[in-house]
Amino acid sequence: MSGITEVAERAGVSKATASRALSGTGYVSEATRRRVRDAADELGYVPSAGAVGLATGRTQNIGVVMPYVNRWFFAEVLEGIQQALLERGLDLTLYDAKPGTEERARIFGDFLARKRFDGLIAVGLEPADHELERLTRIGRPIVSVVGTGGEASVIAVDDDYTARRATEHLIGLGHRDIVFIGGRPERHWAHVDQMRLAGYRHAMRDAGLSEQAVHARSEVSMPGGYAAAVDLLSDARRRPTAIVGVCDEVAIGAIIAARRLGIQVPAALSVVGIDDHEFADMFALTTLQQVPRMQGAAAVEMLLTEIADPQRERTTLRIPTRLIVRNTTAPPHTDRAQ
Amino acid sequence: MSGITEVAERAGVSKATASRALSGTGYVSEATRRRVRDAADELGYVPSAGAVGLATGRTQNIGVVMPYVNRWFFAEVLEGIQQALLERGLDLTLYDAKPGTEERARIFGDFLARKRFDGLIAVGLEPADHELERLTRIGRPIVSVVGTGGEASVIAVDDDYTARRATEHLIGLGHRDIVFIGGRPERHWAHVDQMRLAGYRHAMRDAGLSEQAVHARSEVSMPGGYAAAVDLLSDARRRPTAIVGVCDEVAIGAIIAARRLGIQVPAALSVVGIDDHEFADMFALTTLQQVPRMQGAAAVEMLLTEIADPQRERTTLRIPTRLIVRNTTAPPHTDRAQ
Repeated sequence: MSGITEVAERAGVSKATASRALSGTGYVSEATRRRVRDAADELGYVPSAGAVGLATGRTQNIGVVMPYVNRWFFAEVLEGIQQALLERGLDLTLYDAKPGTEERARIFGDFLARKRFDGLIAVGLEPADHELERLTRIGRPIVSVVGTGGEASVIAVDDDYTARRATEHLIGLGHRDIVFIGGRPERHWAHVDQMRLAGYRHAMRDAGLSEQAVHARSEVSMPGGYAAAVDLLSDARRRPTAIVGVCDEVAIGAIIAARRLGIQVPAALSVVGIDDHEFADMFALTTLQQVPRMQGAAAVEMLLTEIADPQRERTTLRIPTRLIVRNTTAPPHTDRAQ
Repeated sequence: MSGITEVAERAGVSKATASRALSGTGYVSEATRRRVRDAADELGYVPSAGAVGLATGRTQNIGVVMPYVNRWFFAEVLEGIQQALLERGLDLTLYDAKPGTEERARIFGDFLARKRFDGLIAVGLEPADHELERLTRIGRPIVSVVGTGGEASVIAVDDDYTARRATEHLIGLGHRDIVFIGGRPERHWAHVDQMRLAGYRHAMRDAGLSEQAVHARSEVSMPGGYAAAVDLLSDARRRPTAIVGVCDEVAIGAIIAARRLGIQVPAALSVVGIDDHEFADMFALTTLQQVPRMQGAAAVEMLLTEIADPQRERTTLRIPTRLIVRNTTAPPHTDRAQ
């Protein structure tokens, strides 16, 4: 079997250049990279992953731990991470760590301890204390997307500010009966959802509406928002004039519920979300926009900096959101019948 | 630093058992595994990934290549794969290979050639000829979920049958003006979408309705189905009485469009989808159910069998779908005005 020496000879470059071109590490021009790859192809040469890892002392691999992959925010962050890693020739090992599952226990117990990565990105992980201890013991740089991060660096939007801004938009339109939908404190109650509820309450308090503040509990999903809104909207006497969804999925679920109940949005009900989900435009949803794909890319950037310089101080990056007014919010009607 | 010998001694087991317990390979009782892990924890021992890989000649890692992670089907398959791998102590390296991107070229050119995996699962990949050649050259077992698979084993639903069944359901209710929405032959035209269109055409032909068959082109997504349905439904004279969506996302997009245009579903328009998407229940969508999570789990099963016995003959597993009748399909009204 041919070795790197033969590949380098055939491509007319040094061994070091051939190695860089094939491992994806360090700079090599596109033309050279192609020449080396063609030479490797012709000779049937592929680098041994084990050998590369041991030679450089690095795994060329980044671990990503997240509790969901099938929800918009997480899938978008993952795509942002994947693209940034591909550009740098790095692999991505995925750990899907759903809260309260045996698999999660195993990920923290076995998988992460193997340290098959140079660093970790934890997306919305919200580790328990004993999990946090295990993460710390791994001794690899960690960047958290969303959440408090413990001792790790964090990238997140300012959830309190964002929900406050969403609520203030409704108050500015003249609404007073505004309900916040999303989250179940009695079950898994994500930090991000708590912060958003707090932001809603702050805005209500500042407008002298503390007594009107209502938290309608729901699963944080489109069907969850739908179910909660059906309950909330079915009794016309208790119906609010506006809803803040903890995220766009919940807000869209509420819109679907309203339509099914024959309640016009925004004529009889205003709805605002948080995210700018891929479906937001289709539902003409007014929302506070965040771009999770960019958060994923920024997490890679931050993590690679910390891998290169482990002594570097941890950073917290709060990413701004912006209000996008579409067609689900309007002033309340004085006559609440439709 | 402590080695595997110290861990084995402390746990009171053989070195081989300790190694199996920590690497997740081979059978070890749960109690023993915990004892070994505790011992390793107390001693601060973690196995070196490089060393494990070289010692066993296996990477304990499975590569997954898919063109999307942020679409329902792909995310569900991925979750099924991840869970099955976690149960077996195996890592998952993810490659997000969108058609026509530079990243995809790099995945096929560099990443896969590194062979940092014992086998590959390709989900809806539809490799071009030169990509297929590279896959073959890797010399590792491959299982395809969806698609033709080339020389690899395949797990997929029978798409022709499934779309035929969806169409026959509408024909059975008395519909004749049935439009199929989804797919753009002039752009990326997935094999699965082609097969579903063919199934629709077969059912129309068998019912003597070949001349009525219409394919409305759209992106294969909820916004894509929405946009196509707005076009299709806006002109009342050309409006069909029923729609087959190439998948539930497209079908749901069509329902949202119908509601916005004031067209009652199913009184004035029947809609059937394919998938049983997580939102299908919320829209009361009649659909042909598949369970992609099980396809992912089955792919792992099949791949591990082939890794253990590379000479084994390749298999093709067609998974049945079943009709779930909910509330978006009904007999057509003779008076088409609403």
